[in-house]
Amino acid sequence: MINRIVENIYRIKKLSPLVHNITNDVVMNNTANALLAAGASPIMAHAEEEINDMVSRCDAILINIGTPDRFTVPAMVAAIRKANELGKPIVLDPVGAGASQFRNKILAHILNAGIPQFIRGNASEIMFLAGSSPESKGVDSTESSANSTGAAEALSRHYGCIVSVSGQTDWVTNGKELWQLHNGSPMMTRVTGLGCTASALLAAFAAVETNPLIAAISSTAFMGICGEIAASKADGPGTLQLYLYDTMYNLTAGEVAAHLKIEKIK
Amino acid sequence: MINRIVENIYRIKKLSPLVHNITNDVVMNNTANALLAAGASPIMAHAEEEINDMVSRCDAILINIGTPDRFTVPAMVAAIRKANELGKPIVLDPVGAGASQFRNKILAHILNAGIPQFIRGNASEIMFLAGSSPESKGVDSTESSANSTGAAEALSRHYGCIVSVSGQTDWVTNGKELWQLHNGSPMMTRVTGLGCTASALLAAFAAVETNPLIAAISSTAFMGICGEIAASKADGPGTLQLYLYDTMYNLTAGEVAAHLKIEKIK
Amino acid sequence: MINRIVENIYRIKKLSPLVHNITNDVVMNNTANALLAAGASPIMAHAEEEINDMVSRCDAILINIGTPDRFTVPAMVAAIRKANELGKPIVLDPVGAGASQFRNKILAHILNAGIPQFIRGNASEIMFLAGSSPESKGVDSTESSANSTGAAEALSRHYGCIVSVSGQTDWVTNGKELWQLHNGSPMMTRVTGLGCTASALLAAFAAVETNPLIAAISSTAFMGICGEIAASKADGPGTLQLYLYDTMYNLTAGEVAAHLKIEKIK
Repeated sequence: MINRIVENIYRIKKLSPLVHNITNDVVMNNTANALLAAGASPIMAHAEEEINDMVSRCDAILINIGTPDRFTVPAMVAAIRKANELGKPIVLDPVGAGASQFRNKILAHILNAGIPQFIRGNASEIMFLAGSSPESKGVDSTESSANSTGAAEALSRHYGCIVSVSGQTDWVTNGKELWQLHNGSPMMTRVTGLGCTASALLAAFAAVETNPLIAAISSTAFMGICGEIAASKADGPGTLQLYLYDTMYNLTAGEVAAHLKIEKIK
Repeated sequence: MINRIVENIYRIKKLSPLVHNITNDVVMNNTANALLAAGASPIMAHAEEEINDMVSRCDAILINIGTPDRFTVPAMVAAIRKANELGKPIVLDPVGAGASQFRNKILAHILNAGIPQFIRGNASEIMFLAGSSPESKGVDSTESSANSTGAAEALSRHYGCIVSVSGQTDWVTNGKELWQLHNGSPMMTRVTGLGCTASALLAAFAAVETNPLIAAISSTAFMGICGEIAASKADGPGTLQLYLYDTMYNLTAGEVAAHLKIEKIK
Repeated sequence: MINRIVENIYRIKKLSPLVHNITNDVVMNNTANALLAAGASPIMAHAEEEINDMVSRCDAILINIGTPDRFTVPAMVAAIRKANELGKPIVLDPVGAGASQFRNKILAHILNAGIPQFIRGNASEIMFLAGSSPESKGVDSTESSANSTGAAEALSRHYGCIVSVSGQTDWVTNGKELWQLHNGSPMMTRVTGLGCTASALLAAFAAVETNPLIAAISSTAFMGICGEIAASKADGPGTLQLYLYDTMYNLTAGEVAAHLKIEKIK
């Protein structure tokens, strides 16, 4: 698996896949910077009028509902439809699922229009979507990721998609296999939008790796290892964020080998 | 006072209050990062449809009109009404008050719907709101904060709220007492949105400290001291912003004691 | 030319021109920080209702269509009209020109309402606007800037405006003269929105320098030199962005002289 992960990291730098982001207002800058640092080419576009053009041009799509409003929902619906039609990989990040009725309705609306190839969120969000938790506190998880694996597997089977859960431990499942990754740093929870960044990177990996399970494992490993290395150099969450981009830009195969903590649970 | 300030700083880290932000597009990322670095949990949500859910869930609310448009005004109005109804602390940051008729109308609209527990702005904004200055240049103050104390006191008495003015010297008043804080660095004016950050932090302090005057003093002290320490390490406004988050994350009681410059004027 | 460039850099710090930005959601924070670091005073305002007030107050205007939607187009149209009426300098950054029919229509709409004093973009965007390239991949250029000089000159003559193209080499033309600047670093393409930052800075230089060709040359030199110095200190695109603001804040006449690579081609 490690060779495949390294290969995918280099493939993004070589192929520079175009990732179309319909994402929240908080993290647009950060996810664009993370995609660029990793070697991908981001485009942010949320107007319904240009969704078909953008989805047609791009190699993968991200939908993130972090700061939802009624004006961008039609764009999200159009994007998942067009991505499904063209067979392009699409990642759904259900930010704040369960935190408001409005977000829940939007998610239902998007998932009614099409099936994402990937759903990536924190434990609260994944458990809400799987129907195993009634609500969440906000956008930060109130649940340990270790408690969400059953929900993740159920959600994966329900939609036939890869589900990835981030937390102290990260989990990736295709409904049959279940992989655990244990990289990262607790300090990462003190930087806004690193979950959103993980979702955007997942879209980039999905653009260069045809096996979706391996794409999700590669992306999770990349994010966790880069965060871990950056945190080890940082004095706090401010410098962590910047060192994260530097690390994404410079990461070597040797560093992946030295840091990767992965286990196949099922 | 210093012990109470330190206590409040640690309380945010311990209790991680949920702060709901309806804020401007320029600073969403920064204020989320500052809240996280300080230990709070931010949520950004500006759709009218989810305001009641978010205000009900959160511990304090921030309204900041920095990039106003007609689509978010109903959300701001709904938020101040719901916060008043539930007795939750709400901070109003009147960014650019006096800079356009549109902003002035929005402010009148919000203040007509409810009373914020706190108003925090620069001298131009506070003087405009108090009716003592006809207009302002833009979003940066054209007035020294020292000239605004009379306006701050009048505004505080008019709405029965705490008024906090940032500038070379920071001021906090409840209409009777007037406190001066003299921390910070001139370099902070060369980083966008640090006033907005101060307002978001004020919401976090208001969530953990029931005395609103002390909440505002604690928040102003925290922001000023962290900015001062960060500026002393920074080579310019770029590194200042990152060191600011690092300092918020790491600030010790000893540093507060070593740096705090506060005086009760009245 | 070098003395004039240095003079303009100091003039921004001295005069602190007010720059009104109608720009994209990805880069608002960054361009505000760049303008502040350079010494200017930014205001972000995209609501049609306050455009006339803001354009009337400000010294220069930036229109950037990076994340377009139908709600901000009327503001862009109002801004170019008012800027033309008041004779204030206005910069158009046609982000993603050619990447969607929607962006193309918006550009046609804006350019039908008024003439910008400056158009600044990457090679793909400038070539599309000049009619010499049918489309572009996304927001990153697929063309070398060296191939775009003919298009830049044609576009400049067509609108009677200054055209500036950024890339490995930067170009500035008024339709007669053609200047080449060769500063910067390839690492700058791995930070989002540095082209947008260059456009915002151009508005600041246009506010303090009445000769538009010299304003564009000064701005291009400032951006390229600051990026080059920042990249030489950076470990990757994360630290590059922060050091860029620090360098903009601290840049000396000696550094300009030591780094500037400029040539008049025509």
